[in-house]
Amino acid sequence: MAKGRTEIAEYGEFGLIDHLAEGFKPQCKSTICGVGDDAAVIEASKDKAIVVSTDSMLEGVDFDLTYFPPKHLGYKAVTKGISDVVAMNATPEQITIALGVSSKISVEFLEDFYAGVAFACKEAGVDMVGGDTSASVTGLTITVTAVGRAKRSDIAYRSGAKMHDLICLTGNLGASYLGLRLLERERYVLEGVDNPQPQFEGYEYLLERYLKPRARYDVVESLRKAKIVPTSMIDLTDGLASEVMQICKASKCGARIYLERMPLAKQTTAFAEEINMDPVVAALNGGEDYELLFTVPLERREEIMSLGCVDIIGHITAEESGAALVTPDGKEIALQAQGFVRERHKE
Amino acid sequence: MAKGRTEIAEYGEFGLIDHLAEGFKPQCKSTICGVGDDAAVIEASKDKAIVVSTDSMLEGVDFDLTYFPPKHLGYKAVTKGISDVVAMNATPEQITIALGVSSKISVEFLEDFYAGVAFACKEAGVDMVGGDTSASVTGLTITVTAVGRAKRSDIAYRSGAKMHDLICLTGNLGASYLGLRLLERERYVLEGVDNPQPQFEGYEYLLERYLKPRARYDVVESLRKAKIVPTSMIDLTDGLASEVMQICKASKCGARIYLERMPLAKQTTAFAEEINMDPVVAALNGGEDYELLFTVPLERREEIMSLGCVDIIGHITAEESGAALVTPDGKEIALQAQGFVRERHKE
Repeated sequence: MAKGRTEIAEYGEFGLIDHLAEGFKPQCKSTICGVGDDAAVIEASKDKAIVVSTDSMLEGVDFDLTYFPPKHLGYKAVTKGISDVVAMNATPEQITIALGVSSKISVEFLEDFYAGVAFACKEAGVDMVGGDTSASVTGLTITVTAVGRAKRSDIAYRSGAKMHDLICLTGNLGASYLGLRLLERERYVLEGVDNPQPQFEGYEYLLERYLKPRARYDVVESLRKAKIVPTSMIDLTDGLASEVMQICKASKCGARIYLERMPLAKQTTAFAEEINMDPVVAALNGGEDYELLFTVPLERREEIMSLGCVDIIGHITAEESGAALVTPDGKEIALQAQGFVRERHKE
Repeated sequence: MAKGRTEIAEYGEFGLIDHLAEGFKPQCKSTICGVGDDAAVIEASKDKAIVVSTDSMLEGVDFDLTYFPPKHLGYKAVTKGISDVVAMNATPEQITIALGVSSKISVEFLEDFYAGVAFACKEAGVDMVGGDTSASVTGLTITVTAVGRAKRSDIAYRSGAKMHDLICLTGNLGASYLGLRLLERERYVLEGVDNPQPQFEGYEYLLERYLKPRARYDVVESLRKAKIVPTSMIDLTDGLASEVMQICKASKCGARIYLERMPLAKQTTAFAEEINMDPVVAALNGGEDYELLFTVPLERREEIMSLGCVDIIGHITAEESGAALVTPDGKEIALQAQGFVRERHKE
């Protein structure tokens, strides 16, 4: 059933915000006042610290509307926002969303976008407590600010990794990046074709990892239950190499990652093979996995293994030794970070 | 002395963030961890609530780089962000800044921008605790999230205005809008002129109000000292008419504003006269004044008057009577809101 197209101007700013905020009812005890005033009000408590993070997604750089359904985009924006709070070993509880909306965006698009936001919020137990919608003369811009809470002693900074600590990783790597490559391939192949039918069969997992990644708040919960506080923690947004190096830089240490322990999904290796790419490159530099990389003291090894959702992929070494990947034959390859520079070169 | 131009790619994302964050040292006791990790960490306390707000400024809609110096832009972005926290009668303490940066923006531009941010932060006693810098393929986008704290019983929502309450206003109205009109006039006149020399003499105040407005955190402080908690409060971003109507809508009440009590600066009326505009129109619909509109019970009249920085411009009436402007001869003119729709029509 085709939906109509309603121009945003028909609502006006205030009507639109009211309309879009309808589906959002607070779920968190700490949310005192959500959307509808100058600012949101959140309850503080003496034994918990507040954690705040902001992240943007810009059309043409971070997403392409030709293959990003608005509902998925809303979901992913929430994931991206709360993942940074999760990476502090804190529980995300509130988000605000600031949108810059160009005239090509309809009310129906925003409804779908916010349906995705609402879905992700419900799943994660997070409240959408505020926002700002501005006219944009250029593309769609999305900025999510996430607020979370944690006992101050539970907060995991990037800077606490110690010599001999185990390097732990949730989930698997590179699938999101290959999902993007798959989407780009189909777009290229089908350019100019009427009623295009892209071929994604067998690679649905890669698409899901790119279009609808989930932040690992479940792992924060598991760690809390197991009474494990990581010595350092970071989320995987720019690929494993970059994040390991961030931990090393902040903690003034080195690291060894074992190539054969790097978790890769079956579809990741299969599609990488199909496009003649080394899946390890996708894992190291691909980005947007939203998994957690963290360190724990050596003696917590058994407890970490018993969590089930975590792999031990290496260990922390002395600063002078640098950060390196160790191949099965014992060769060491120095890690190299990418990040923003890569994005700009993609322009 | 002309500055050179350094491309952002020379720094890379991580180097750039480190470089720009250098000038920011925490000033607030509640800032546990600022820039440099996945998220900022803020101390909570049992008797205070946390207030959070997000606001965007987009190039081509909210500002024009041909006449907005980067330092002023940084200053104003902070003002816009913290003004919403102030409007809850809370004290702003932290901000995060997310930037979308196009390739025309140099490192020197960002240095100046952040110098303005740092200046505004220092003045307001606020810490810049985090940020995100992304490549933008379109224009410059700025999103500021502000965090503040207040005793829960001190928080002023939009919804608490009661019948017969006095309507109070800080500062004066319309100057910012006329500052923008002045800048646009000079740009138009000087288009194509080599080495243009715009004529701003006598109107410096209007320029300052547009390019470098200050949030009224000083008023929150004065109210606290005088033990006055407004029954409702809002900041003036879209013009007086729109904000009075927001209070009326949220508080289910009407309002009467007296035309002759509307505070206008000398330069505002002078420049309005020069361009054949009614200064009252600028005051009602101009926007970006960042003054505070609030209500207090009738019996606080003397205390409000003694603050010195506040005018009483009207009073709250029954909902059925609506929101209206009362002229000196007793005529009533219904108020009309503008906001987003106006912005879109400006495109």
